[in-house]
Amino acid sequence: MDKLVLCEANNVPLTPITFLKRASECYPKRTSIIDGQTRFTWPQTYDRCCRLASSLLSLNITKNDVVSILAPNVPAMYEVHFSVPMTGAVLNPINTRLDAKTIAVIIRHAEPKILFVDYEFASLIREVLRLLPSGESQAYPRIIFINEISSTVKPYSKELDYEDLIRKGDPKVSSSMFCVHDEHDPISLNYTSGTTSEPKGVVISHRAAYLTVLSSIISMEMRLFPVYLWTLPMFHSNGWTHTWSVAARGGTNICMRNVTALDIYKNIELYNVTHMSCVPTVFKILLEGDGTDQTRLSRPVRVITGGSPPPAALLQKVQKLGFQVMHAYGLTEATGSVLSCEWQDEWNRLPKHQQMQLKARQGVSNLAIAEVDVKNTKTQESVPRDGKTIGEIVIKGSTMMKGYLKNPKATAEVFKDGWLNTGDIGVIYPDGHVEIKDRSKDIIISGGENISRIEVEKVLYDHKKVMEAAVVAMPHSLWGETPCAFVVLKKGETNQGYGEKESMKTKEKDLIKHCRENMPHFMCPRKVVFLEELPKNGNGKILKPKLREIAKGLVVDEDDTGSKKVQGGSVNQVSSRL
Amino acid sequence: MDKLVLCEANNVPLTPITFLKRASECYPKRTSIIDGQTRFTWPQTYDRCCRLASSLLSLNITKNDVVSILAPNVPAMYEVHFSVPMTGAVLNPINTRLDAKTIAVIIRHAEPKILFVDYEFASLIREVLRLLPSGESQAYPRIIFINEISSTVKPYSKELDYEDLIRKGDPKVSSSMFCVHDEHDPISLNYTSGTTSEPKGVVISHRAAYLTVLSSIISMEMRLFPVYLWTLPMFHSNGWTHTWSVAARGGTNICMRNVTALDIYKNIELYNVTHMSCVPTVFKILLEGDGTDQTRLSRPVRVITGGSPPPAALLQKVQKLGFQVMHAYGLTEATGSVLSCEWQDEWNRLPKHQQMQLKARQGVSNLAIAEVDVKNTKTQESVPRDGKTIGEIVIKGSTMMKGYLKNPKATAEVFKDGWLNTGDIGVIYPDGHVEIKDRSKDIIISGGENISRIEVEKVLYDHKKVMEAAVVAMPHSLWGETPCAFVVLKKGETNQGYGEKESMKTKEKDLIKHCRENMPHFMCPRKVVFLEELPKNGNGKILKPKLREIAKGLVVDEDDTGSKKVQGGSVNQVSSRL
Repeated sequence: MDKLVLCEANNVPLTPITFLKRASECYPKRTSIIDGQTRFTWPQTYDRCCRLASSLLSLNITKNDVVSILAPNVPAMYEVHFSVPMTGAVLNPINTRLDAKTIAVIIRHAEPKILFVDYEFASLIREVLRLLPSGESQAYPRIIFINEISSTVKPYSKELDYEDLIRKGDPKVSSSMFCVHDEHDPISLNYTSGTTSEPKGVVISHRAAYLTVLSSIISMEMRLFPVYLWTLPMFHSNGWTHTWSVAARGGTNICMRNVTALDIYKNIELYNVTHMSCVPTVFKILLEGDGTDQTRLSRPVRVITGGSPPPAALLQKVQKLGFQVMHAYGLTEATGSVLSCEWQDEWNRLPKHQQMQLKARQGVSNLAIAEVDVKNTKTQESVPRDGKTIGEIVIKGSTMMKGYLKNPKATAEVFKDGWLNTGDIGVIYPDGHVEIKDRSKDIIISGGENISRIEVEKVLYDHKKVMEAAVVAMPHSLWGETPCAFVVLKKGETNQGYGEKESMKTKEKDLIKHCRENMPHFMCPRKVVFLEELPKNGNGKILKPKLREIAKGLVVDEDDTGSKKVQGGSVNQVSSRL
Repeated sequence: MDKLVLCEANNVPLTPITFLKRASECYPKRTSIIDGQTRFTWPQTYDRCCRLASSLLSLNITKNDVVSILAPNVPAMYEVHFSVPMTGAVLNPINTRLDAKTIAVIIRHAEPKILFVDYEFASLIREVLRLLPSGESQAYPRIIFINEISSTVKPYSKELDYEDLIRKGDPKVSSSMFCVHDEHDPISLNYTSGTTSEPKGVVISHRAAYLTVLSSIISMEMRLFPVYLWTLPMFHSNGWTHTWSVAARGGTNICMRNVTALDIYKNIELYNVTHMSCVPTVFKILLEGDGTDQTRLSRPVRVITGGSPPPAALLQKVQKLGFQVMHAYGLTEATGSVLSCEWQDEWNRLPKHQQMQLKARQGVSNLAIAEVDVKNTKTQESVPRDGKTIGEIVIKGSTMMKGYLKNPKATAEVFKDGWLNTGDIGVIYPDGHVEIKDRSKDIIISGGENISRIEVEKVLYDHKKVMEAAVVAMPHSLWGETPCAFVVLKKGETNQGYGEKESMKTKEKDLIKHCRENMPHFMCPRKVVFLEELPKNGNGKILKPKLREIAKGLVVDEDDTGSKKVQGGSVNQVSSRL
């Protein structure tokens, strides 16, 4: 047995970029991408990706180089998921909801050689470039602008235009040039939160991406030729890896620059959409569309949702419209999907509200996950499968990330004891389904985006009048959760800064303004509560559960989101208005 | 990027045995196996496999040891697919259609430490043991008999009974003991043809099996909780890897000792069967059932067929009964399925006969295959995708075998030029679908089993009266193909041996008798044609196409298969009567 050696024929590295060449050969007449008037077939998409890869090579892009992109869900955003790793480089899709300062931090950390920028973010990126230190030449990536494909106006330097690179690229550069030699090599770099001090860049391997694609196709039961509507930003964990899945199934990508109820319903009917993924926030958008959009779908659309647990009532309303919701749980560190709430036919006989409770559970492990467990955080022992005893959700398997870029401390911490420690607290039921019972201690999930409580607290602490601050999640009708700050003002400062006569409202506005000046808007607390002191236990540890209890009863001032009309704008754009 | 190292949490070897533990945890109440009155749940199957693995360990089974099994589709046959590789050993399921002599050759070659034998094959195995040379002690495997689970009679030595080993095994032996440390380690050893001189034992890795399972689930669109009817022998490429797939999807295995029309229809209705796999020969059994069995199914059953191309007329008849046939192509050397005829909805609008022609094509590559191509056998260049130009089908990917056990020459030959060279001749259509146009030069496929023409010719040449022999496939109504021999008798012998007055019939019977004495019956020619000389080209090479042309027009004497009643007996049993 030992004498059999691996060879070129039987040891091919696993990478999802093989799905593109296969799609071009096996589905030659199928439409790969629709973006308004623009349509491509799979051979065209393959041709465009080969051309772009060859242009990147001629720009000296090579193995392990980082190539970043700041773009909405347009064809270029889809194409870079293949063309960048084809060259051996690592794709870094940047969250378009971030502010210039945070993007600058990411760019200094990731050190991309090239940064693709959609024209929509032209002024944002100019601000980012101003923030990069002038001394560090390597910190300046080469900018390549992405315009509308149909556009004939070239407002930017001709040499740095995406379509120009495609035109100039050589489609005949042998595909063997694009080979991945080791499946453990990185394919993408995804930042989990826009932090200013310690950015966490998750490095994903070709192997992890490939295996996640296969197991996600199975868990979401994505049959041949799906029509996939891009309501989920592709920058979010590479669109939960569905960028590659759609190629694997020979499907059609329906691009959307802006996620509005009108556009979603229009696209669903126009193209017979079969699948979409989104955070529960998008359900709100669907339900709160202005009435004319809200129609029962003529055929069911399978929706994968995750990011935060969907409330049962919301699920029921959305299902009534014709959406078949499947709940999944994942994290960037696990290359996307980890658990899926696999539906069992006999559950259809249960009362509706009970069905929705079952559906709100995160579910069972996908096939690419070797093991999932819930462990007592102190003893490290598995909790009983009783649906009651809480513990931390831990995972192992080949789809876990390689680690955090340039952050060995955080990498070692998250991987301690031979598991990926998710930081999420949950229970496990006798039927094997996992349910998250509490957010992990540090994370607030707002509109599907993670907000680190520690980072928000840091900014609050920077304010000269703040003595103590604690941030917890509070429920929000549109975003699911939003940060709520509890603040104790400095004793001496109380009178100096804010006179007795200044209202709570003014003090609150002042602190929120301070936050907005120092972090992305979506991370800012929407509510500040002033206390004489924070509730603490005997050891001086802040009693977070008590604060969460208070936050639950609070109401956000809805002056900027109360409008029922969620107009033009993707989730990120709506958010950036806030 | 280079500083990120693999660790226990993110680098878990890929192996299909993980699917069993997962099924026991995620589908704890689901039925895993039904075999007559016997029923198990997934936790019970997991428990039984752990116990058996622990017993195997206590019998000193260790990494890379071979454990063989000779059994029909009974629960034990299913369980060894998990319990044997759990110990690090290699499973060798032996074709039950083979004769004692061939099995003895396999056992001498594979050198199993243990041989599981179903009681049905008790006398066959006694014959096999007699054939093993007495001098070679390592050639004698330890025999463990498999009885009916419900049986209380223990006709064989108590220590060597399968159920006893399960009872004595320790289910609590930590599952970490069963870890596979390298996914490239072998999981199974499958012999491709019962040859006497040069057995070809295909060694399959855990990685290849795992990836084939995922990609087969996708290509056959096997949804959650399939009810899988075992019409395909599990010894055949590990049941085309569906042994492991059913565990991955939390399905139910319906075992069948004998494949009869009556039992197939009965099981389908009784258990709401959703899936089965079989060679086209089984379609004949379904259609030729004695009438009372033949009912239109109350719900559709998805049937994966392969082994030999199903004739369009046969497909159409079977589909009318309610079977949804999917055509696939695979080979043992590729761990099972390679191509699948992915059905496209728009084809439903074509005339029925055209649909069946499309369905008879072998199809497009599964996702675990890195590349499939059809190459000109002389120039090694890809043939044009015109559906006309023939070439050899070649494959590469991580699901290709590790090689042939103890046969470096055959391994090097099949892997030459960085591809697995299938030996099958086909064309590739503009839509990427591959169709096999001719059997590979050496192989005749009879009832799904490969017969090497060379081996049959060898036996014929051994006959003292034969001067020249050439064997080709001839069509057969039940088996798809059967060997047809063209023989030139020795000049001197013609008169000495067979007097002028001896009829052709007598001569033919004499040669077939000789074959039956020297090889498994299913490999014997059913027709012998005597010629003055074989047709040859200028270089003296026999013109096989000309012989095939003649063979096409011949009719087999149907005295032993003409009966419409295909009674009691699996495909292999029916065949062993022939």
